[in-house]
Formats: sequence, structure tokens, C-alpha cells
Amino acid sequence: MHVLVVGSMAYDSVETWAGKRDRALGGSATFFSMASSHFARTDIVAVVGEDFDPRDLERLRKRGVGLEGVETRPGETFRWGGRYSRYFETRETLFTELNVFASFRPVIPEALRNAEVVFLANIHPRLQGQVLDAMRKPAFVALDTMNFWINGEREPLMAVMPRVDLLLLNDEEAFALSGSGNMLQAAEAIRAMGPRAVVIKRGEHGAWLFTAERSLQVPAVPLREVTDPTGAGDSFAGGFVGWLARRGRFDTDTLAEAMVVGTLVASCTVEDFSVDGLERLTQATLVERHQRIRGVVSDLAVNWQAGGSE
Amino acid sequence: MHVLVVGSMAYDSVETWAGKRDRALGGSATFFSMASSHFARTDIVAVVGEDFDPRDLERLRKRGVGLEGVETRPGETFRWGGRYSRYFETRETLFTELNVFASFRPVIPEALRNAEVVFLANIHPRLQGQVLDAMRKPAFVALDTMNFWINGEREPLMAVMPRVDLLLLNDEEAFALSGSGNMLQAAEAIRAMGPRAVVIKRGEHGAWLFTAERSLQVPAVPLREVTDPTGAGDSFAGGFVGWLARRGRFDTDTLAEAMVVGTLVASCTVEDFSVDGLERLTQATLVERHQRIRGVVSDLAVNWQAGGSE
Repeated sequence: MHVLVVGSMAYDSVETWAGKRDRALGGSATFFSMASSHFARTDIVAVVGEDFDPRDLERLRKRGVGLEGVETRPGETFRWGGRYSRYFETRETLFTELNVFASFRPVIPEALRNAEVVFLANIHPRLQGQVLDAMRKPAFVALDTMNFWINGEREPLMAVMPRVDLLLLNDEEAFALSGSGNMLQAAEAIRAMGPRAVVIKRGEHGAWLFTAERSLQVPAVPLREVTDPTGAGDSFAGGFVGWLARRGRFDTDTLAEAMVVGTLVASCTVEDFSVDGLERLTQATLVERHQRIRGVVSDLAVNWQAGGSE
Repeated sequence: MHVLVVGSMAYDSVETWAGKRDRALGGSATFFSMASSHFARTDIVAVVGEDFDPRDLERLRKRGVGLEGVETRPGETFRWGGRYSRYFETRETLFTELNVFASFRPVIPEALRNAEVVFLANIHPRLQGQVLDAMRKPAFVALDTMNFWINGEREPLMAVMPRVDLLLLNDEEAFALSGSGNMLQAAEAIRAMGPRAVVIKRGEHGAWLFTAERSLQVPAVPLREVTDPTGAGDSFAGGFVGWLARRGRFDTDTLAEAMVVGTLVASCTVEDFSVDGLERLTQATLVERHQRIRGVVSDLAVNWQAGGSE
């Protein structure tokens, strides 16, 4: 199946213990598509400024990402700057310059309106709704959002929620959206808002999937060192949604597979700056990481009947 | 095998969203032994004041806990008061009155010096060392500690570390002890200090086991509502160490089983105040929770060769 993502393309200036990167390729649609394109044909709808480096478009094109929907407008590209503490306990935003992204009005090219799988990255929920209006008959719609919209634009967010199959968000957002600080309560409340599935991302603590049939926990890949966590969530979403599109199925078992793929892909992102880890991602890397993550999960067997050795 | 725990017995005054409890039975040795006694014969070495209610000793005795090592001294019992935020994100200590615990000098009765399994709950590391001096030939020693000793009494703590088989601590303590905020790095550094196994408890995020052979993650039992998390860590330790003593084995596979048992037991503690959940714990409860936790763990299967449905 064919994936369409609507979101941001950006230049990030990032400082971590491992070093500094200025004007590194970033943005939700960028991370998502770099990940998703490993599994399914993926097109971006986004806006960039006149300063956007054609070599960066070329990097996406090389990964097979469709750029017909990327509009270049007068002005500068969206820029974000941030600094992380040594072990990523905290993140300080140094600047946010929306630039051309401030007036982004996604226009879906005719040829992309047939995409079966849609990922609405973190943009204004009203725009997310307009994208859905433009789509012909998507088989699966996934949505991301953030506290800014949860707290400030609740009404349009609530209007789009019943139109999506899956909401992906982090724990803090899930707690804010649901009003509960308990994961099970939060997931239940969010599913009552519309989406039949909810994925709650918890960074190094892994991710949870909630559907009517079951709830499921997948740990993060244990890493000895993280370089830059920027884009981890969108990479997870790209691996997750890309896998669903490749399989062309959206049942709970396939969602469970997608949880693992998203987890593995995100672990590649955070081991390098920007999209560098995603760019050199191979099937072999995924299979190796898959073995690694399976190794840390217990089968939780206990033989209750077993007595002692005495 | 026979378990000896050396730690505190206390009266806790606890406030959570679910209500208030004043002078509720608490303390590390209490929680530990209430848990451990479900699996193995367990004796406490601790001190209480003259105010200690004989009915509380009776509650322990009813669970089969040996109290020969519980000394009653002039003065009041150790008291702690705390208040938790609605979803247990934060805990505020309202008061700490060490009382008779301030001058606690553990004396191990002759009959208990043969215990094969020893749990050194959170007391001064010098006292932990003195307990070990008194023991004949323990087959397995597990140690708990806290930031207060890690930061303030590092030298005696380092002296006792090579004498223990297992260190149990939470993530914050592991980071403080190791100087690293990365779990894998922290565990490796701590194992280099002596213990051949390290268990890092992460509350609702579950727990990790690290040995030379493997690292292993066990999720917490997902709960819709927590009543009072006080004692969860000591209950985990009690289930864990009690299970090892019942099995009389300390290999990595048995440690992995103990991780699950500790997790299940701790989940019973936090669903009620004080030791109430532990007191009514049954084998049936454990088996039911065991099924529940196995249900949320994915086998992490991904069929990499599977194509799409199109």
C-alpha cells in the first residue's frame, strides 16, 4: 500500500553530550518518511523555504520518498534548536522559528489522494481534518499530536479523533489528553474519543499498544549510548505505519508486529544525529536488533509447582 | 532454605488519593518478610519501641515469620510520614522519626546464624557488613541500599559490595551509585563493584536483571489503580529472595523466575495500604496475575519475509 505523510520539514540545531549539529535535516515528515520508505512507497506533503538545500531533497529522493507534495515558499524553512542534558533527562528548547511552516496549508496533489495509508504528523488538528477531507478512501489513518494542541485546540482535535484508526502519542500527552495519570485509564479514555487503537510511546521504557482485544508492551532496544533522541517518535511512527502499509493489514496481530518494527527503527535514529541512522538502515541491521531485543525479554515462565532442591 | 532479613520495622502515616492511614504497619523488614514468608521460612532481625502493638507482631507470626530477632527497646518505634501526588509522580516526606531505629545494632540470635539466604535491607552499610560477619555460611546474600548511603557512606558501602551476590536498587540509586545515567552502563559498573547480579527496579516501568550471562526486562503488572506504593520495593525483594530460597538455586534461570515472582508480589502490595495486600496474598492471586502479565508481553515476532496482501 501507499503511504502519505503530512507534517513538517525542518532544520534542527541540536546539542547533546556527543556534540553539536547545526541545520541538521529534521522535521516530523522527514523522520517519518525516511523510516517508512524502508517498507512502503511513501509521499510527503510539507512546506520548505527557499533556503532548503536541494541536496537534502536528494537524500529523501534516494530513499524513494515522493516529493511531489513538497511546496517551496518564499522565506526560510522551519527551524528548531535544542539542547539535551547528559543522559537526556531534560531537553531545553533554544529557539523555534516557524517561518514558512507558520502559514502551512497542506495541498494534496491529485495523484496522492488515493493513498491507502495516511499519517497525520503533528500539525494543527484543523489542518489534519482538512487533509482527511481531501483523501479519497484511506484504509488506515494514524494521527500524532502534542500538548500544544491538546491544551489549546481541544475542540478541533476532538473533531478529528473519530476519523482516525490509530493515535500515536507519548505518555505525557496521553495523560494530558485523558486527564488520567494511569496508563490503562488514559488509553481507555482515548479510545472512547474515537481511535480504535492507541500507541503510547515511553521513550527508553518502550511503548504500549491498546486495542479492544488486548494491551501489549514492547520494550525499547537497550542501548549503551544514545547520541540524539530527536525524531525518535516520528521514526517509530514511520516504522510502525510503513510496516502496516507493507503488510496491507491492520488487525491486532499486525499492529503488534508494527510495534516491534517501530521500536527497532527508532533505536537506529537515536544512535546518530538527524536522519543519519535511518539513511543507512538495512534489513540486516533490523534483524540483528530484533534478535537483541528478543534476548532481553523474558518468557515470564514460573513453575509454581516446583519445590526446593532440599 | 531459610531466609534472614535485617532491616526496619516501622509505623507509617501515609496519604494518597485513596485516603489516609495513620500508624500503619510498615518498614523494610516487615514488607520483605510478609512477602518472603509465602515462599520460605523467614526470620526478622529488627528493633521496635515499647509502643509497638503486640497485634502487629501477631500478624507477622500468623504468616509464619520468625520474631526471635525482634528486639523491643525503650522509646518509640521508627515512624515515617509521607504524602503522594494523585498518580504517584511525586512523594513528599512529612516527617521521619528514627526513634529506637537510630541506635539499631543488629544482634543475630545463635539459631539464625545458619540461615542460607540473607537479605540486608536498607540500613547503614557498616551494619550490613557486621551482619555478614555474624553469619556462618550463607549461600546467597542480597543487599538493598539508598541514596543517603550511596552519597554519604560510600566507603563502607564499597566494602560490603564484594561480599554480596545481588544488589537490588531503583534506577535513581543505580545512576547515583554508578555515575552513569544509562542503564546498561550503570549495571556494568555496579557489577564491577562486586555483586554478580544486579536488579534495577523502575516502578511502573518494571525491573531489569543483569548477570554476566544476560540482561532481562520484566514489565510491571499493569494496574488500573494504585492505592499506596509504600513498600513495593521491599515486597519485590521479598518475593524475589523468598522464591530463590524456596527453589534453593541461584542460577540465572532461577533469578529470572524470581524477577517474575517479585513483580507479582509487589503488585499486590500497591493495590492496598500497608501490608494488607501481602497479608491476604494467595497462590491463586499469584497465578491469576501471572496470566495477566504474560498477556501484555509480546513474543516480539516479526515475519521479515512476509510481503503485503496486494
